Amino acid sequence: MSTPTLYGNPRSGHSYKVRLALQLAAIEHNYVCIDLSVPRKQRPTNFRAVSRFGEVPVLVVAKNTLCQSNAILQWLAEHYPKLAVPEEQQAVVREWLSWESNRIGFSVSNLRYSLTMKAAPTPVNHWLAERACADLDTLNQVLSTQKFLAGQHFSIADIANSAYLWWLADAGLAIADWPNVQSWLARIAAQQRWQHPDQLMIDPSASA
Amino acid sequence: MSTPTLYGNPRSGHSYKVRLALQLAAIEHNYVCIDLSVPRKQRPTNFRAVSRFGEVPVLVVAKNTLCQSNAILQWLAEHYPKLAVPEEQQAVVREWLSWESNRIGFSVSNLRYSLTMKAAPTPVNHWLAERACADLDTLNQVLSTQKFLAGQHFSIADIANSAYLWWLADAGLAIADWPNVQSWLARIAAQQRWQHPDQLMIDPSASA
Repeated sequence: MSTPTLYGNPRSGHSYKVRLALQLAAIEHNYVCIDLSVPRKQRPTNFRAVSRFGEVPVLVVAKNTLCQSNAILQWLAEHYPKLAVPEEQQAVVREWLSWESNRIGFSVSNLRYSLTMKAAPTPVNHWLAERACADLDTLNQVLSTQKFLAGQHFSIADIANSAYLWWLADAGLAIADWPNVQSWLARIAAQQRWQHPDQLMIDPSASA
Repeated sequence: MSTPTLYGNPRSGHSYKVRLALQLAAIEHNYVCIDLSVPRKQRPTNFRAVSRFGEVPVLVVAKNTLCQSNAILQWLAEHYPKLAVPEEQQAVVREWLSWESNRIGFSVSNLRYSLTMKAAPTPVNHWLAERACADLDTLNQVLSTQKFLAGQHFSIADIANSAYLWWLADAGLAIADWPNVQSWLARIAAQQRWQHPDQLMIDPSASA
């Protein structure tokens, strides 16, 4: 397969999911940072040509142009054996990817964005914080009886659901309040080649 | 395959997605309504036994207990030929399912719930309405050049993304403001066996 190119951004947990999957599976790839402070219609032409909505992440791989982080994770799991999901776990992995999009990947990411960018009024932040806490409660309960979200083995479901939790303090929340989630994050961080988003997502052109 | 059982609720667009898929594919099934006004821990024992989080929908089919509406749609598409997604459209269908969970299936459903149940303060409703309008703008733009979300053919992506739009007026929005979305809804409603959620989701035990 040709070398994939990932368009992403250091502050995007959705971009981080994809780069972490590539990193964990040791898949060589190009990583191009897109400046999200530039309005969508003014972003680079080569990026706009491949991005359906002007959003990150986009992965260009083997003649495919893929967007939506959890859809990309599913594609990668189907094409790279190191990320493969066993047949009997596919339904539960898809459940967790779907849950993530609607719950923790919404609540924590939007709360963090709003608090760090002063983007929304206080009642919205309270509403998002309430949802984020409910979502962390759900994860904490599930992780009281199992090591990873699909059961005993690490999967793309763990990559997706943990993505924004490395920045939980930015959302004004303390991971210690959800001890099973905290232990699960430690198990994820112990995966070979794992890196924190603040390291993994550094813009390569800025550090050159 | 044994007769599937769907646990759902007449006000849940996520439940409607699943029942509509079963209906369009003429898949015989049982439909059990769960009263969402009853706290999760007090819902019927047989429902709690199969529901991971006490939420609807849940589909019990062929020894599988499936939750999360878009994950259920993917499972159905893999197991029933009438709902099958052609190989070359699988990536784009997954993108739209993922987008739905995080965008229109979040914004419109939460806005409708908040307005009809007086659930959230006004600034939250404004914030949700702004998101809902942005999401409808996205759909309207895409549907200016194609008949359905995956291209020329109806798919589970259309089932998912349209689910809450039949109730757009409950969310204080007028479909006429997004004419391409309105035309697309008419194309969906023209599918053989299609039914509006207010008809399809009637509680069978209440009407008996």
